[in-house]
Amino acid sequence: MQDKKLPKLSDAGLAPTHAVTATDQYGEVRHVRVSGESPLTLKVDNQEVVTLMTLGTHPELLALGYLRNQRLIDDISLIKSVHVDWEKESVNVETYTGEGISHWQEKLSKRTVTTGCGQGTVFSCTLDKIYNQKMATAQVKQSLLYSLLTVITQYNEVYKQAGAVHGCALCQNDNILTFVEDVGRHNAADAISGKMWCEDIPGEDKIFYTTGRLTSEMVMKVALMGIPILLSRSGVTHMGLELARDLGVTMIARAKGKSFLVYNGVDNLIYDAQPKKPGS
Amino acid sequence: MQDKKLPKLSDAGLAPTHAVTATDQYGEVRHVRVSGESPLTLKVDNQEVVTLMTLGTHPELLALGYLRNQRLIDDISLIKSVHVDWEKESVNVETYTGEGISHWQEKLSKRTVTTGCGQGTVFSCTLDKIYNQKMATAQVKQSLLYSLLTVITQYNEVYKQAGAVHGCALCQNDNILTFVEDVGRHNAADAISGKMWCEDIPGEDKIFYTTGRLTSEMVMKVALMGIPILLSRSGVTHMGLELARDLGVTMIARAKGKSFLVYNGVDNLIYDAQPKKPGS
Repeated sequence: MQDKKLPKLSDAGLAPTHAVTATDQYGEVRHVRVSGESPLTLKVDNQEVVTLMTLGTHPELLALGYLRNQRLIDDISLIKSVHVDWEKESVNVETYTGEGISHWQEKLSKRTVTTGCGQGTVFSCTLDKIYNQKMATAQVKQSLLYSLLTVITQYNEVYKQAGAVHGCALCQNDNILTFVEDVGRHNAADAISGKMWCEDIPGEDKIFYTTGRLTSEMVMKVALMGIPILLSRSGVTHMGLELARDLGVTMIARAKGKSFLVYNGVDNLIYDAQPKKPGS
Repeated sequence: MQDKKLPKLSDAGLAPTHAVTATDQYGEVRHVRVSGESPLTLKVDNQEVVTLMTLGTHPELLALGYLRNQRLIDDISLIKSVHVDWEKESVNVETYTGEGISHWQEKLSKRTVTTGCGQGTVFSCTLDKIYNQKMATAQVKQSLLYSLLTVITQYNEVYKQAGAVHGCALCQNDNILTFVEDVGRHNAADAISGKMWCEDIPGEDKIFYTTGRLTSEMVMKVALMGIPILLSRSGVTHMGLELARDLGVTMIARAKGKSFLVYNGVDNLIYDAQPKKPGS
């Protein structure tokens, strides 16, 4: 870690919510808060890559995580600085070479084909690279899941105030190392990835929690971060499930209170805290 | 209508859910359903445009609505046919000229800059064009909203079975003309737009309902469809709200049961069914 050159980051996180008035069903004006949503154009060495719509609380980590998860830059030590300028609605990632993303034209052309790979991202997801990645096998206790779900209810700050956001958390045992909310769950996941990249945090002993749905893209992102256990309050898609199976990600969804469903990797769950069945 | 040449559509909607097994908190295996998620590469005259991840129930309308909402093709009468081939995971939109999207390179280069404009789409949102559009002023009764919210609870089929989808509805009075669910609310909105385009359905006397959040992009799509009233079960973002104000879209969110909040255009709401206030 000591020898590793880490990028210099600006500190330009926005306040996540705005005060507005709205009129309720009784015709009464209420003072409420709504979540922010700002365009942020990501540049590498002043070359435009993409514009993301974001809550804006962690723009530097979002930029880094996006570049990492889209495999546009492979090595964080190539990055000198990340500077956000909200007046220009942009973030510039400066590399040591100053030459931008290598093989950019090639990657750009791939983008033409594969925007999809889920909502909100644009580059070829290079599944083959993911498949080369060996996922660590990790076990998790049911009691730990329950502790984690209890702890997590204290987060979701923006959601509680204003709604319209998703939250993602990086967890180790029942500690929440980071909790990020964003208007897109993909952004929140990318920001967490950016933090892990920046601080050289390994994924193998972590759990990734999200309030959002487990589509193929979320599973891909988590696999890219090397995190073997994925926990969601929401549901899964069939393609997300198939990817989890292929990649060996333990997938636990519909997790709320004492309920959950293990869609993949049930052998990795230690049932040490089974609740009493109703009527038994 | 009679003179208008309408495109010939394939009929390749997929079944929306898949049966899988999952293990619950009691360690018991349960047979559940998960929503589908399939990549669909959109081509115009065999030229690749984008890959969308979709539930796949309305692939032809999704393709049309995407081209319309992204302003890639301006006139439906230019389109000869829409043919989906799931084996190739693609949909080809054939035009009468056979020359693909006009000014494609220019539009493609714009995409480089503005992927964002919300999650899941990629082309410049040409806000200026929206601003040129005059939104009809339409009033809506509170009693109608309540009828609509009651009727809508009968829909959401996929959500009820499998979760992990959002629903969008095109409504006229308290009739649901179409209800589309998809893994992305943007896809569902695009499919509805495709149907309106195909069947020459005007927007000015409609209400657009969605289970999803009202981000800037959702407001933009609804404005592009010419629909003056936007109703959502979820919340709004600040940018979504600002756009609704600028464009004159009536924005009613957090609508569930008897509750709602009017974020914009409260003068267009006729309070004819105010519920009794608790404690009054």
